[in-house]
Amino acid sequence: MELNLLVGGPVSDLPVDFISKIQAIPGDWVGADRGAVRLLKWGIKPVLAVGDFDSANETEVAAVAQACPKAVINPDKVDVTDTELALRYILKEYPQVRKVRIFGATGARLDQFLANLFFVLKPEFAPLINKVEIIDKWNQIQFYTAGEYELEKMAQMQYLAFIPLTAVQELTLKDQKYTLERQDFAYPISLSSNEFVGQTSHFSFKKGVICVVQSRD
Amino acid sequence: MELNLLVGGPVSDLPVDFISKIQAIPGDWVGADRGAVRLLKWGIKPVLAVGDFDSANETEVAAVAQACPKAVINPDKVDVTDTELALRYILKEYPQVRKVRIFGATGARLDQFLANLFFVLKPEFAPLINKVEIIDKWNQIQFYTAGEYELEKMAQMQYLAFIPLTAVQELTLKDQKYTLERQDFAYPISLSSNEFVGQTSHFSFKKGVICVVQSRD
Repeated sequence: MELNLLVGGPVSDLPVDFISKIQAIPGDWVGADRGAVRLLKWGIKPVLAVGDFDSANETEVAAVAQACPKAVINPDKVDVTDTELALRYILKEYPQVRKVRIFGATGARLDQFLANLFFVLKPEFAPLINKVEIIDKWNQIQFYTAGEYELEKMAQMQYLAFIPLTAVQELTLKDQKYTLERQDFAYPISLSSNEFVGQTSHFSFKKGVICVVQSRD
Repeated sequence: MELNLLVGGPVSDLPVDFISKIQAIPGDWVGADRGAVRLLKWGIKPVLAVGDFDSANETEVAAVAQACPKAVINPDKVDVTDTELALRYILKEYPQVRKVRIFGATGARLDQFLANLFFVLKPEFAPLINKVEIIDKWNQIQFYTAGEYELEKMAQMQYLAFIPLTAVQELTLKDQKYTLERQDFAYPISLSSNEFVGQTSHFSFKKGVICVVQSRD
């Protein structure tokens, strides 16, 4: 099964025509905080809503509580973001989930975006690392642990970036505009502005976590 | 001396009233690529312009070359972003620089933003780590190496975040809404949504690099 998670980032950074095309996105929806309120407004009933809803009014919270089969209002939430809390419930309620597309996780506050990027490094979320996808108007972000991979070029994206989030060993980029041969990285770095040369692209590495971004201007 | 660097990120993410108030920002300006073209349009003559200017037309490039005392057009630029290239020239031409405010380094392409965040970890830019400041509409970002520090609350910002970009030892947050006592972190993490309790805030750590973000919704 596939799930979609809407968190509370700025609407202006959501993918182009997101609201008008939301019904066509496959899979059930989960709303984190303000994301749950927005999903209801846009005609989507989340299967799960999680958050302290401190930015919503009473009517909105009541609507979320009534509409969602499972609504976790005002959870005990120390040291965890709304996104992480929603993912924690997703892991608990849908252990068989195959893919989680995350929307609304970027834009405006960069401390929140970085929390939404670095959460994959927490041992608690290791089961999700290869399954989550962060999508906004200009970027599609996926995460990889050591291994050999083939990427498929997204039609609307021009650039490709390999971003070690930890120390990484023996990164090899085989068939991109800029290639690499078993290079080590000791600290986080963004190898940005690379490009596909064909429809697919191959890379491999031995140790660490890499985030791959396909993006456009 | 202080310098300001404008790089080519989206104008919509620049600080509020940036263009109308740009003349009041103290210090000389450096323009990276499209940033140099914009500075000229906004009535600022950069002391230094660097970039391959692949997004500018001939007239714009000629204007930059004519207006700037030092214009580095089409430099040899492998494995380095426009921001990094500009900072490399800043280090070379202004070794005595005390502060570099960077604008236009955020928004839209997240691989570019992450390159503009992680560059401080490259040994080449170590001399700048405590001197650069990345500023946009919602965030002010500074970088710290091991030590004891006092932060001053920015009037317009509500949130405070401590973001280890590397493994960090013994992070202590003394007088924030959420405190910590000598905690270690093994990988990058964003400790977001903390807040000042007074006008200043104190923190210390033993090893690693931390980025501190003051932000607002």
